[in-house]
Amino acid sequence: MQNLLQGLRIVEGSAFIAAPSGGMTLAQLGADVIRFDQIGGGIDYRRWPVTEDGKSLYWHSLNKGKRSIAVDFRQDAGRELLRDLITAPGENSGLFVTNFPAKGWLADAELRNKREDLIYLNLVGDRHGGTALDYTVNSRVGLPFLTGDGVEPVNNPFPAWDVIAGQQIALGVLAAERHRRLSGEGQFIRLALADVALATMGHLGYLAEAEINKQSRPPMGNHVFGTFGHDFACRDGRRVMIVGVSPNQWRAIVSVTATQQAIEQLEKEKGLDFRKEGDRFAARESIKKLFETWFKEKDYTEVSSQLDTAGVCWGPYQTIEELVENDPDCSDDNPMFQRVQQPGIGEYLMPGQPLDFSAFAREDVRPAPLLGEHTDEVLNEILGLDSSAIGKLHDQGIVAGAS
Amino acid sequence: MQNLLQGLRIVEGSAFIAAPSGGMTLAQLGADVIRFDQIGGGIDYRRWPVTEDGKSLYWHSLNKGKRSIAVDFRQDAGRELLRDLITAPGENSGLFVTNFPAKGWLADAELRNKREDLIYLNLVGDRHGGTALDYTVNSRVGLPFLTGDGVEPVNNPFPAWDVIAGQQIALGVLAAERHRRLSGEGQFIRLALADVALATMGHLGYLAEAEINKQSRPPMGNHVFGTFGHDFACRDGRRVMIVGVSPNQWRAIVSVTATQQAIEQLEKEKGLDFRKEGDRFAARESIKKLFETWFKEKDYTEVSSQLDTAGVCWGPYQTIEELVENDPDCSDDNPMFQRVQQPGIGEYLMPGQPLDFSAFAREDVRPAPLLGEHTDEVLNEILGLDSSAIGKLHDQGIVAGAS
Repeated sequence: MQNLLQGLRIVEGSAFIAAPSGGMTLAQLGADVIRFDQIGGGIDYRRWPVTEDGKSLYWHSLNKGKRSIAVDFRQDAGRELLRDLITAPGENSGLFVTNFPAKGWLADAELRNKREDLIYLNLVGDRHGGTALDYTVNSRVGLPFLTGDGVEPVNNPFPAWDVIAGQQIALGVLAAERHRRLSGEGQFIRLALADVALATMGHLGYLAEAEINKQSRPPMGNHVFGTFGHDFACRDGRRVMIVGVSPNQWRAIVSVTATQQAIEQLEKEKGLDFRKEGDRFAARESIKKLFETWFKEKDYTEVSSQLDTAGVCWGPYQTIEELVENDPDCSDDNPMFQRVQQPGIGEYLMPGQPLDFSAFAREDVRPAPLLGEHTDEVLNEILGLDSSAIGKLHDQGIVAGAS
Repeated sequence: MQNLLQGLRIVEGSAFIAAPSGGMTLAQLGADVIRFDQIGGGIDYRRWPVTEDGKSLYWHSLNKGKRSIAVDFRQDAGRELLRDLITAPGENSGLFVTNFPAKGWLADAELRNKREDLIYLNLVGDRHGGTALDYTVNSRVGLPFLTGDGVEPVNNPFPAWDVIAGQQIALGVLAAERHRRLSGEGQFIRLALADVALATMGHLGYLAEAEINKQSRPPMGNHVFGTFGHDFACRDGRRVMIVGVSPNQWRAIVSVTATQQAIEQLEKEKGLDFRKEGDRFAARESIKKLFETWFKEKDYTEVSSQLDTAGVCWGPYQTIEELVENDPDCSDDNPMFQRVQQPGIGEYLMPGQPLDFSAFAREDVRPAPLLGEHTDEVLNEILGLDSSAIGKLHDQGIVAGAS
């Protein structure tokens, strides 16, 4: 079945998380994403986590559904090939995404000489052209001081800014492609990872809070800011996260824990009104104590069943291993997932993308390519090279196929 | 100047973070995003952080650049008005984003009866239709066990899944709009917040690691998994985050800290090769100790200047207050930011969106609307109601303007 972005072709030269995940998102929406790599693999081809024999689960997870061409772009002839690929004609092509420096052979002007309506999206570290990674950006925007108990800053192990930037890359490409379709005009798009973080901190009100209220937000521990939410330990040690944001959610917690009287008493003592989220937040430590006993007296199985019956908004704490082993939503019971054979590694569970479009059946989840798996195919199909010309490029070490 | 998505019209009925941020992203790309709210404001209209007089910096930050219509949609007449608005004709309209339940008066079939090619994106909690919030999803996917030192799970105070889902919403709308433009076909799109988190955990290799290696990833503290990265305290107590991912970044750290000999010695002792990222990760604690002294002996100003000169990839730790007060990238020195007058609150720094498109000057950052600010304008312009009909709706309490 024809999929959503079928026919759209994007060339990607990328490493790490943000740019590859942007390309993968477009690939999983049905676009033809052709990734070029240095012969033998680029800087992130062996990044951790790796299998026992050193295959990167990181690289393969981030490049699902793409085609791969392996080119020695330290050679001029390799660069020329890639420039031809990036700027190949067709109303559905001429889209390029990279986090490599947009200079030298990848300068916008160089490429735009060959195709004026090129859409070229370049991810950079910060707006000054400096390097920045998720972790150096995250320390800068202050969140480590809100994480944990606040004695020392606690980093986020999950590279959220990279993932957000990846989605912005896919979005930027589609927005620019829409404009080109309507106007014929291509353009250069610059996205700075640091700006992604700074903008988000503004969009969620953190910056305005600091500027206007001139008040430090306290470290959150496992509380949820501005409302009631906390984790609780069950008798058997398992933990659950409980959130009471909406009035219904809040009432459900109070009801299931049978703490109505104690809660009313606490409201009176403190002069607060727990129908207001802010008042629940203000009394968060006392509220938490009132609820704790109910959880401590029951094993997880009972807790989870009673929470569900009462309509409480909650989630279990699970390790990633428990998630993979036990959670039906993290299995091919969930149509977003399939068990897929990854050449070179074996079969494992792979996610498609989460958007579920009614006009299309979910596309099969495709594995990552072998490095250079589509070299000959791409050279022939898109650049029109015949087998003798392609053979020559192999002989000269300018391109390579999958080994 | 005409902006990227100018002319595209999206109707939004939303609360909390994900759906409003999706609409705001489209608004900041130039689309006309019309947000409807219950008269007096919905469930998140007063969410924290708030100003001294109770105005929500959260709500206003997440609804910048939209138009607002205030309608009593507990009344049938209000529902009918909104259904007309959502399904109003025009090739650039008929796009609807909501995290309200897609049932009853907002059922897809109800709306599609009025406009067959409607694009309707519905954000839900999980794929079964259950409620889920960022915090209950995050506990479920295992990251709190990787955060901090691992004695107890540590939550992420920043709702990353909501923000990622918001970007996916904007992306899904544009992808579906492209398809409709090419084929005439509209569709219903469902996005589950839990699926956003589960897919991302797969795309970054966490799931494959757990399934294939059957090995728990240890809690990360402030280390970066699979490479070298950690925070260091300077003599004056200020901290910096240092990352050595690329060979150049790694060499720069070793060089600036003058630890070449000690590093080589450590490699020999441990039988590791620190040119490999994985080997750097394996020896992370020992490496950290070798670097520590250099930072401890210098104040932040000297550290930062020497790190810059050496080309180290690093970032300062700053509180949000410090970020707002001192960082030039978080000020209107950065063209992404402007100081904007927010009616009802005052002037403060607001971000636009981070994508910088060469074909357009950055659009001015627009504040959030007053609740109902555009009620009459929208009723007249889009639904063609005259002032007497609009007056009647006001009199009947079906709509309201800004007060």
